Amino acid sequence: MAISNIRYGEGVTKEIGMDLQNLDARRVCLMTDKNLSQLPPVNAVLNSLAKYGINFQMYDNVRVEPTDQSFLDAIKFAKKGEFDAYVAVGGGSVIDTCKAANLYASSPTSDFLDYVNAPIGKGKPVTVSLKPLIAVPTTSGTGSETTGVAIFDFKELKVKTGIASRAIKPTLGIIDPLHTLSMPERIVANSGFDVLCHALESYTALPYTMRSPCPSNPISRPAYQGSNPISDVWALHALRIVAKYLKRAVRNPEDREARANMHLASAFAGIGFGNAGVHLCHGMSYPISGLVKTYKPKDYNVDHSLVPHGLSVVLTSPAVFAFTAQIHPERHLEAAEILGADIRTARIKDAGFILADTLRKFLFDLNVDDGLAAIGYSKADIPALVKGTLPQERVTKLSPRPQTEEDLSALFEASMKLY
Amino acid sequence: MAISNIRYGEGVTKEIGMDLQNLDARRVCLMTDKNLSQLPPVNAVLNSLAKYGINFQMYDNVRVEPTDQSFLDAIKFAKKGEFDAYVAVGGGSVIDTCKAANLYASSPTSDFLDYVNAPIGKGKPVTVSLKPLIAVPTTSGTGSETTGVAIFDFKELKVKTGIASRAIKPTLGIIDPLHTLSMPERIVANSGFDVLCHALESYTALPYTMRSPCPSNPISRPAYQGSNPISDVWALHALRIVAKYLKRAVRNPEDREARANMHLASAFAGIGFGNAGVHLCHGMSYPISGLVKTYKPKDYNVDHSLVPHGLSVVLTSPAVFAFTAQIHPERHLEAAEILGADIRTARIKDAGFILADTLRKFLFDLNVDDGLAAIGYSKADIPALVKGTLPQERVTKLSPRPQTEEDLSALFEASMKLY
Ligand SMILES: NC(=O)c1ccc[n+]([C@@H]2O[C@H](COP(=O)([O-])OP(=O)(O)OC[C@H]3O[C@@H](n4cnc5c(N)ncnc54)[C@H](O)[C@@H]3O)[C@@H](O)[C@H]2O)c1
Ligand SMILES: NC(=O)c1ccc[n+]([C@@H]2O[C@H](COP(=O)([O-])OP(=O)(O)OC[C@H]3O[C@@H](n4cnc5c(N)ncnc54)[C@H](O)[C@@H]3O)[C@@H](O)[C@H]2O)c1
Ligand SMILES: [Fe+2]
Ligand SMILES: [Fe+2]
Repeated sequence: MAISNIRYGEGVTKEIGMDLQNLDARRVCLMTDKNLSQLPPVNAVLNSLAKYGINFQMYDNVRVEPTDQSFLDAIKFAKKGEFDAYVAVGGGSVIDTCKAANLYASSPTSDFLDYVNAPIGKGKPVTVSLKPLIAVPTTSGTGSETTGVAIFDFKELKVKTGIASRAIKPTLGIIDPLHTLSMPERIVANSGFDVLCHALESYTALPYTMRSPCPSNPISRPAYQGSNPISDVWALHALRIVAKYLKRAVRNPEDREARANMHLASAFAGIGFGNAGVHLCHGMSYPISGLVKTYKPKDYNVDHSLVPHGLSVVLTSPAVFAFTAQIHPERHLEAAEILGADIRTARIKDAGFILADTLRKFLFDLNVDDGLAAIGYSKADIPALVKGTLPQERVTKLSPRPQTEEDLSALFEASMKLY
Repeated sequence: MAISNIRYGEGVTKEIGMDLQNLDARRVCLMTDKNLSQLPPVNAVLNSLAKYGINFQMYDNVRVEPTDQSFLDAIKFAKKGEFDAYVAVGGGSVIDTCKAANLYASSPTSDFLDYVNAPIGKGKPVTVSLKPLIAVPTTSGTGSETTGVAIFDFKELKVKTGIASRAIKPTLGIIDPLHTLSMPERIVANSGFDVLCHALESYTALPYTMRSPCPSNPISRPAYQGSNPISDVWALHALRIVAKYLKRAVRNPEDREARANMHLASAFAGIGFGNAGVHLCHGMSYPISGLVKTYKPKDYNVDHSLVPHGLSVVLTSPAVFAFTAQIHPERHLEAAEILGADIRTARIKDAGFILADTLRKFLFDLNVDDGLAAIGYSKADIPALVKGTLPQERVTKLSPRPQTEEDLSALFEASMKLY
């Protein structure tokens, strides 16, 4: 497994101009989204670029929850700019878009589908070398600053998919908790749920010794290798931080300790799932986001409907872990305990229910919408949701328990209402 | 912080031929020591090289506890061979020697002192690019497969020092617990003590926010940054494994679970201290090893006197942590608890004594020599031991509590007898 460089600390963003000088960067592409372009994180970066006399162009047209179209727009900008370094300031949407822009600008004759995950795209290995990318996360969720993954919504197919290659992992992640202070409540909550699910899914993923096929040549092994003793450390540690700090971070924007810890937890969980992988909550979340109808979440300053990624993963989590627990019940019980359940008298065979109940209580306490029904889905949508999950086998096959289409149906159905 | 690639699993060594093919390696340098060249770990590598038709030359002249002379001999071999990849199969002695050989063969006009840590050498930054190095550890101790450090004994000065640069960190560490099965008892114990001290020292090192000077340009910051939230995760995790498995691993060569866990713990602690640093046990260990008189440890199949590195660090550990505890007493107490102390009624101001007692008991249980006196030192040697510690400021300045020469004297004196 491989882990990228990260630098952590309040205010470390101010060094970014120096980092770019050290990289001898002469034409920098700065990516962000429209909302963030007016906020302190982008400001801090601009100040440092000015101080160190870095020549750059800004692209602030990133779409929140990116699509193939929005990726292509950013790629066009990157190709034209002939940049020698990239800086992404934002949440997963910005960092992922920047990874794609860097990749395709570095591989200008490639077709967009070439690097998109199979079976939707061709899933070709990346052999070109990319320009350095410095990622400055401003949410506490995706861990994208540590992963080789870039996710987008394939509009035509109404399904989310992505690009996964170690080659697109950022050169450096700058984890500066000051950036979390401007996040509104729901963005803290939803991105925090992403951390929660990264941790839970990577901890319960199929063990790396059981994944198949296991290509005999190490170079052909996927980034997502199944749970392993190293990703377990990261997953558990991130889960403990979520248990201790997520509620505080959501409820009190002034709670710097809580927000700083969640910001680190996001990177920790990213390192964990970036090596182990995620499974059903994520696999099922892609159609939940892709098929969105009219849902407009509070606190998101955007003009299109969207189901925020963290919300789309967490809504199925009680059903998913009730389903998977029969494989590693002790890990499910351990997770429930970390999240606050009293397991002194618990029976191991109830591990799934206990974790599911614990999650429901956790979500209720954080005012999460009451299931898929509350964000606009009904029973009639289940076949489409299932159909959208099937091509996500890159992740769903990492579920410890294999699933039939009927199982997926039942999981969506059980997630319609939570409380 | 940066972390190298590692691959973990029983038998994963058999893929090394493929790794070298993937690197397009045509002239490989295989390094090991004389003892290991007859043992299963080297055999496993040779089989894989043969299977994949890898062209290589073997150097088995590595000195256990290397010296400037032995480094130079390996460097000469490397320069002559014009290799395009390196494989190190062994403990820290082999891996460190191989790092140095790769470095100086890649920088052929450099003087040996150029890269040696200041103030002993010039401590120049490495700007040349090195060949890939795959490290296959066979002890469970140094974590050298994950660090940018290479240690040697500077004979003329009678002091151990080293080379520290991210550039010499191995490209890949192959952590194959099968290699631990041939380790005799004392090698398991001594290399395990190295893990113990890496974990304890990096967890109690000066916090990264307090280290000074803190060069304003990130590129000039040292690899050893002080304790930080990320190295803490690794240190604590490694310490828990040591507490649970070291005694079992020492006592029973058939206990695969214990030996495998210690093999991973060695890498975990390496990642931790490779970023945070170590402090007094290590700083004081260098003269303890460097000034060795006639001590010949059991189970070491070598013809010169030596104090094994792990033993040289652990003998001062009770005195050191009794001394440092006034700075982070809660961390010292936590470490004692992890190592088995009952701290329910403990007072925080006794943290240092409690940890020291816990360590003494731990060492007694593992039949460790009764202090520096038992390995040939007397009071008369203390001035020389102190003098040998002074140039180790690269690490000693990471001690949470600053030390005077008198303090160092007292620490050596307190370490003469343990039980
Ligand atoms: N690459 C990966 O490893 C990975 C992992 C998980 C999710 N993702 C993807 O990342 C995307 C979601 O990213 P996200 O959850 O980080 O959110 P996001 O990037 O979509 O941002 C959500 C909203 O928060 C705003 N925002 C961000 N930071 C802010 C701040 N500090 N202050 C005020 N407003 C702020 C943004 O402007 C935006 O409106 C999804 O597309 C998801 O699929 C990627
Ligand atoms: N680079 C770093 O980060 C780092 C950290 C700590 C220590 N060190 C250095 O590493 C050296 C010590 O390394 P070490 O403790 O790994 O021991 P070692 O490499 O010195 O080996 C000790 C003895 O064990 C034998 N041996 C090794 N593996 C064996 C196996 N599987 N079966 C049977 N015998 C085996 C060797 O042949 C040798 O005789 C010291 O020089 C120390 O200063 C380096
Ligand atoms: Fe996610
Ligand atoms: Fe050591």
